Amino acid sequence: MKKEDFTVEELRNLFQNDYNDALIDYFTFLKFPSISTDPNYADSVKSCAEWLTNYLRSIGFKVELWPTSGHPTIFASHLQAGPDQPTLLIYNHYDVQPIDPLNEWTSPPFQPTIKNGQVYARGAQDNKGQCFYTVHALKMLLQRDGSLPINVKLCIEGEEECGSTGLSGLLQAKKEQLRADYVAVVDLGLQAPDKPSITLGLRGITALDVEVQGSFHDLHSGMHGGIAFNPNHALIQLLASLRDPATGKVTVPGFYDDVESLPEKERKLLSLSFEEKEYENTFGIQPTGGEVAFSPLERNWIRPTLEINGIYGGYCGAGVKTVIPAKANAKITCRLVANQDPKKIANLVAEHLKKHAPKGVKVNVHLHPGGGKAARASANSPVVQAFAKSFTELFGKPCAYIYEGGSIPIIPDLAAAAGGDVVMLGFGYADDQIHAPNEHFGIDRLEKGFIIIAKALYNLKR
Amino acid sequence: MKKEDFTVEELRNLFQNDYNDALIDYFTFLKFPSISTDPNYADSVKSCAEWLTNYLRSIGFKVELWPTSGHPTIFASHLQAGPDQPTLLIYNHYDVQPIDPLNEWTSPPFQPTIKNGQVYARGAQDNKGQCFYTVHALKMLLQRDGSLPINVKLCIEGEEECGSTGLSGLLQAKKEQLRADYVAVVDLGLQAPDKPSITLGLRGITALDVEVQGSFHDLHSGMHGGIAFNPNHALIQLLASLRDPATGKVTVPGFYDDVESLPEKERKLLSLSFEEKEYENTFGIQPTGGEVAFSPLERNWIRPTLEINGIYGGYCGAGVKTVIPAKANAKITCRLVANQDPKKIANLVAEHLKKHAPKGVKVNVHLHPGGGKAARASANSPVVQAFAKSFTELFGKPCAYIYEGGSIPIIPDLAAAAGGDVVMLGFGYADDQIHAPNEHFGIDRLEKGFIIIAKALYNLKR
Repeated sequence: MKKEDFTVEELRNLFQNDYNDALIDYFTFLKFPSISTDPNYADSVKSCAEWLTNYLRSIGFKVELWPTSGHPTIFASHLQAGPDQPTLLIYNHYDVQPIDPLNEWTSPPFQPTIKNGQVYARGAQDNKGQCFYTVHALKMLLQRDGSLPINVKLCIEGEEECGSTGLSGLLQAKKEQLRADYVAVVDLGLQAPDKPSITLGLRGITALDVEVQGSFHDLHSGMHGGIAFNPNHALIQLLASLRDPATGKVTVPGFYDDVESLPEKERKLLSLSFEEKEYENTFGIQPTGGEVAFSPLERNWIRPTLEINGIYGGYCGAGVKTVIPAKANAKITCRLVANQDPKKIANLVAEHLKKHAPKGVKVNVHLHPGGGKAARASANSPVVQAFAKSFTELFGKPCAYIYEGGSIPIIPDLAAAAGGDVVMLGFGYADDQIHAPNEHFGIDRLEKGFIIIAKALYNLKR
Repeated sequence: MKKEDFTVEELRNLFQNDYNDALIDYFTFLKFPSISTDPNYADSVKSCAEWLTNYLRSIGFKVELWPTSGHPTIFASHLQAGPDQPTLLIYNHYDVQPIDPLNEWTSPPFQPTIKNGQVYARGAQDNKGQCFYTVHALKMLLQRDGSLPINVKLCIEGEEECGSTGLSGLLQAKKEQLRADYVAVVDLGLQAPDKPSITLGLRGITALDVEVQGSFHDLHSGMHGGIAFNPNHALIQLLASLRDPATGKVTVPGFYDDVESLPEKERKLLSLSFEEKEYENTFGIQPTGGEVAFSPLERNWIRPTLEINGIYGGYCGAGVKTVIPAKANAKITCRLVANQDPKKIANLVAEHLKKHAPKGVKVNVHLHPGGGKAARASANSPVVQAFAKSFTELFGKPCAYIYEGGSIPIIPDLAAAAGGDVVMLGFGYADDQIHAPNEHFGIDRLEKGFIIIAKALYNLKR
């Protein structure tokens, strides 16, 4: 059958023929401000889920919108390939990160704008862009052939950016529906634009907030300076105790205890080369973060970190305000590697913070729910091999194996519920500015992603 | 002449008879959002100055509105007492501090509200309240007698809360007009409500901002965590280097070099007792700030401090945002004591910050203009004695001598320009929440301040 051996060229034409309509759908998807972490956007998250549900139904999928404790998960399936063919569960998410600092965006984050072949919008890449080429590939295959080469399930959640708590709570109950031979996580990236790559590992994550409480209200720094202990000083002292500047190591006792080091055989598969100068030129910062005893990609891929994502206390406006603030706050996340437990690590950090509370202030720690363990995939599994073959066909060169420093906390649990081997892939580039102002995604990558998804379905066909 | 020996009771009646009209004027004064440190409020500062100019003209003063490099200074004089009588220059300011955090105000900061005999508004005490009882006393004496017992000049500036740069630049040119035998600074407070007190010293101040610049834009803490050095970590490391938590001392080399210690004779005059438990109950914080080797009031009055008034970097909203911010900032002020030079200290701190800049980030330091030296007054000077007598007459007990940890940077220079001895006084209480939400001032203190000003004019009469 012709449809079973689409060439890259044929898939490219399939994409190009529908280009204008696809862009309209993609932009519609991007215009929903589906910021999951901020309760003020709950209605927009819901509208976005409803739009995607309708889209999937219109292309021929059977769709359920699963309510969760938070934002809904979209579950969709197209199982006409029958029991002889494998079932692939594809994971995406339709929620996005917050948009601040808003004044640094050069175009409004929810009005997609094309500049130099790049679409600028919050979610343009992470993950609406990657979700879109996935569903668009399914749509075009179905439109052309009326069928898919294998059975496909989609699990598209709305809380990836805030800990996947809702989907996490459903996994046991929905185990049967989620069951699949393979799980493809389409939320990752390439090591470089010309370097086909599959991701074999993601880090886990855990998050906590710390608040240093001083006086009942802000105090005048003249009237009280030298008497009241400044919560900003206390917070600095406290946070400085988390990290050894000389080694770059996290100083929380037990933080590294459970870290499972990568066997040499697996490590040899990885593409660990790193251009320090190029990194500095691209991002404006030297790669001097993390533990000095490891190379940059080791620090990012297979070593845990503790980052202070936010710190704030006192006056932050123009000019001078002579205040001793009543409180000072910090927001912390830790990235975790294989064998580290998110709750255990959060508790270790919390204990350390409480133990090191400077005298004269109160230290309150809030643990965020929804952390997740690190994920690992095997290069030898059929699903990794099928996607690697697709990348090689598209790029004309061998596929590299990489890790990714980020986290998709739900993945290890989702894979366990589905009972299938995992592959992690995508078309993100390191400089897409995801989670930052001016996030963007290349239109060429919509096409490449489209081709990889379509190709892989055929490569997985028995 | 009857008018020359007003009793406290007569002055109280004089205040009470005009109470309703006075309150209307006071509220009008408070309603101007004359925030000098924020350029967005420049028009309101100007309107406030114009209102006060008209008020002073209407009560019989000759008034000039001096333009400055920033907000205008009001200069007013009433010199009919002639060359045989001394001239008193009274200093106040009509500008106020910013109002954030706005959500912590229980009534709008520029809509004065009376609760339990206290007027709640930004500036209710600092310094519109104190300015108001001063000018109201002058008004009522003039209304009753058509004259004042001594010559009076008023210098009411609009930049006390942002460094007095404008007035500072005028002092040389306006030296002749400012000339006075005595200078009364009416911007201070009592050590306790029932404790008449005169302030013999104020600390100086210098201000600087520090910015740690990392990457060109915010980065994803998963993709970059362990590679990019987090500016929040860098800022914490940098700020932690400013202070020794064990001793509470500022660790900037040379910071204490010029500190002039107070001679034992002067120190014995001071009211240094301090109720630690009462402080904690009032403000909600233990008095554990500053250098451990000194008592609380020594730390606040005669020892310099370095306070971080603001710190901010990265995400500060609800939930979690996994970001490595592009930059992190802190706002610092140092309070200085006698013989310390503001510029020298700011430069020492700036040098320290640059020298300790962690590898891999840029550290930019901005020195704010308009710092000021510490001010000192002598308990033996006639003007201090005249005000002390007034306090004793009002309270029926001896006047205490205190210092104040705050700063009025212009005072030493203004006193030098005027060529007169200084007295510093006022009716602020430690819990008036000046510079903070819910600033307030008791109506009873409008009356007491009124009485002290009127009394002192007679006590200074030759």
